Amino acid sequence: MAQKPGIPKGTRDFSPAEVSKRNYIINAIKRHFQTFGFQPIETPSFENLDTLMGKYGEEGDRLIFKILNSGDYLSKVRDDLYQTKDANKIALKITEKALRYDLTVPFARYVVMHQNDITFPFKRYQVQPVWRADRPQKGRFREFYQCDADVVGSKSLWQEVEFVQLYDAVFSSLNLDGVTIKMNNRKVLSGIAEVIGAKEKLIDFTVALDKLDKIGEEGVKNEMLQKGIAEEAIQKVQPLFGFTGSNKEKLQQLKELLSSSEEGTKGVEELSFIIEAIESLGLKSASLDIDVTLARGLNYYTGAIFEVAPPKGVQMGSIGGGGRYDDLTGIFGLKDVSGVGISFGLDRIYLVLEELNLFPETVSKQLDVLFINFGEKEALQAMRAIKVLRSKGVNAELYPDAAKMNKQMKYANKRDIPKVIMIGEQELNEQTFVLKDMKEGSQETHSFDHIENLF
Amino acid sequence: MAQKPGIPKGTRDFSPAEVSKRNYIINAIKRHFQTFGFQPIETPSFENLDTLMGKYGEEGDRLIFKILNSGDYLSKVRDDLYQTKDANKIALKITEKALRYDLTVPFARYVVMHQNDITFPFKRYQVQPVWRADRPQKGRFREFYQCDADVVGSKSLWQEVEFVQLYDAVFSSLNLDGVTIKMNNRKVLSGIAEVIGAKEKLIDFTVALDKLDKIGEEGVKNEMLQKGIAEEAIQKVQPLFGFTGSNKEKLQQLKELLSSSEEGTKGVEELSFIIEAIESLGLKSASLDIDVTLARGLNYYTGAIFEVAPPKGVQMGSIGGGGRYDDLTGIFGLKDVSGVGISFGLDRIYLVLEELNLFPETVSKQLDVLFINFGEKEALQAMRAIKVLRSKGVNAELYPDAAKMNKQMKYANKRDIPKVIMIGEQELNEQTFVLKDMKEGSQETHSFDHIENLF
Repeated sequence: MAQKPGIPKGTRDFSPAEVSKRNYIINAIKRHFQTFGFQPIETPSFENLDTLMGKYGEEGDRLIFKILNSGDYLSKVRDDLYQTKDANKIALKITEKALRYDLTVPFARYVVMHQNDITFPFKRYQVQPVWRADRPQKGRFREFYQCDADVVGSKSLWQEVEFVQLYDAVFSSLNLDGVTIKMNNRKVLSGIAEVIGAKEKLIDFTVALDKLDKIGEEGVKNEMLQKGIAEEAIQKVQPLFGFTGSNKEKLQQLKELLSSSEEGTKGVEELSFIIEAIESLGLKSASLDIDVTLARGLNYYTGAIFEVAPPKGVQMGSIGGGGRYDDLTGIFGLKDVSGVGISFGLDRIYLVLEELNLFPETVSKQLDVLFINFGEKEALQAMRAIKVLRSKGVNAELYPDAAKMNKQMKYANKRDIPKVIMIGEQELNEQTFVLKDMKEGSQETHSFDHIENLF
Repeated sequence: MAQKPGIPKGTRDFSPAEVSKRNYIINAIKRHFQTFGFQPIETPSFENLDTLMGKYGEEGDRLIFKILNSGDYLSKVRDDLYQTKDANKIALKITEKALRYDLTVPFARYVVMHQNDITFPFKRYQVQPVWRADRPQKGRFREFYQCDADVVGSKSLWQEVEFVQLYDAVFSSLNLDGVTIKMNNRKVLSGIAEVIGAKEKLIDFTVALDKLDKIGEEGVKNEMLQKGIAEEAIQKVQPLFGFTGSNKEKLQQLKELLSSSEEGTKGVEELSFIIEAIESLGLKSASLDIDVTLARGLNYYTGAIFEVAPPKGVQMGSIGGGGRYDDLTGIFGLKDVSGVGISFGLDRIYLVLEELNLFPETVSKQLDVLFINFGEKEALQAMRAIKVLRSKGVNAELYPDAAKMNKQMKYANKRDIPKVIMIGEQELNEQTFVLKDMKEGSQETHSFDHIENLF
């Protein structure tokens, strides 16, 4: 009996139309990565297990797809361990490789391995799939692309300025106007922690503050009190509850609020540099907005933190994010290499463009013209024309069989082919062809020599 | 202690220069796939284990990378099986997914799964990595790209004609002139088997015949006799030992030789159709050559067989291959769908272009211009210029720190950046910039407004 075909849960097939739309986004991202001076690298789909394990926390370790060793993989498991049937411990004996979980750790591994061939600062981009054994759900997959750009080996804040410009350039070129680039700084968050006198309460604090829009000032304060943040501490950061206005006004408030914290003050200075440079240089269609509740991967980032929100009115989480992290490569033995990078969320950007109907009509166009097949001699003449058209970059095709006209035209309609060319016996004898416009239904006869001027 | 970083054997990191060169080839292939009317699809990196197992023979099954189930994967292994410690049988209980071994089986699975959404004939291309647990050796990797184009649902020989043209178009556009497209037909091989009266000796026969150049007619005949092919049978196919001349001459010889075999005669007719069409249409730079020793994947192909040899003088195996196969989708329950397809060998094409020095110089160019950083104010002015240049598609970058001039120029040299622009205090005040040509060493001063006319 034949197998009923299926694919593993959390994975996807992409149809021609979907591949074309995804490539439209990926190409826009890559094009701008390049104009910004980033260079492409690619790393293997699987890494040595010990390169990945322990880098993403306990939860991350469990979500890494491990590859079973080839051959008699059980021979490396000692009998006493085998008898324990301990899945976790035995896994370490029967697997040596694992699928890439993100692009950041492989990048760090790459930088350390190739440090003698790299000119620092090293600006690299990487657009490749990653795999996570996550529970699949709407918009979350077990195989998905990451689109990352990072700079390592430079502490200059111009990098942060460039990443804001890069987000603006990419989203503008996709005609996705009105995105908000939210920016924060780890040092500002540290400053707030200092001021409220409780480092360990910082996450509770920012989570509560983030609900200001929804539950109002009283609601937020109540939540903070419940989480054990002192009333006095909340009073000290009162300005954060009316934290609106322009970025300049926000910076002024933060400056005053954090004046007693050296680290916090440093964070405000960094934010100011970036904000001022961007104001001077201008953005095409995005807005830049300071958001002190932004804390993605708190333990990871050490300076700037970015996150991009889709245009207002679109129900969707962030479509990009990133930040600065010190000592990325330390785990692999190369110290003091500061890095900063951003990522584009391909799947979500796709959904947003789909929802706002922003994919150009031409993006999934596959074929420009179909030649009807009237038999061997006529088909040969059609192939002469097709050869000329293809060499000019036109996507052209002969219907493979001399099937009934009706069937061939149906094929043209189903594939949404805009133009059809007919060379029957009469046209062959007269060295002409008939061009039919499938949208308008009109048709014209041309001289065969005219073919190369057609597109 | 820090980990010493490495990558699994048989896998590769690709540097920016390597990625650029690989993309140069991939883009040429994709561009021509498209002009020939092929549509892109993508399938998941891993498939259900039972989609892949049993499709590539026993050896193939062993070379498939299996992915360990997540969670307590051992709980599905019954104790009596567990105690056998039988690696093969237990593998089937602790793995459900496996990495793609080629693009053909996933394509067949795709066609069957999506048959109601597909318009036949379906011309698809697919450029994605595949994985094999092969012993790594020079030029053979455990992760490598396949670049495939196939048509399913058409028995028309025009498809074969197009694939010959497609090879010619791609290799011509890569300036790789002088490749030989070798062509054979499974039915011709069957005819030969009939004539020598021994189907099971066909592989021995073609393997021996293939050595004609090296060991001469006597050597080949001796080998055939040793393999148990009757002297009388060898006499019957004597013309194959002097099988030279034009394709037309070869076809004439084959026609006579195989006149007693119905299937063989059919094969000669198919070859004739393709040869005649190609002679009438012409090729740009490749040659098409009938080769009756060509038998790749004998059990797989049912009609045309293709293989592309690099230009004479290059020591390298085939750089492409393919053929027609009936009933590709039968294993997944969709009968009577004939397919024909070809593949490009990316890694080998890369090595050939490298050896013949055929990569254009511009292919690994990463940055057009570097702006020297003289400090905050000057850098801001540089960023204004950079913004203009990038919006015009120029790859431009500011050196991130106001480091010593010497260090910045070293960076430009190491990265092979052709032009450097300097905006120091004086230039800022005078609204000018200094453009330095790094190759010629010359430098000129321009008005700042001139920047957008620069590239």
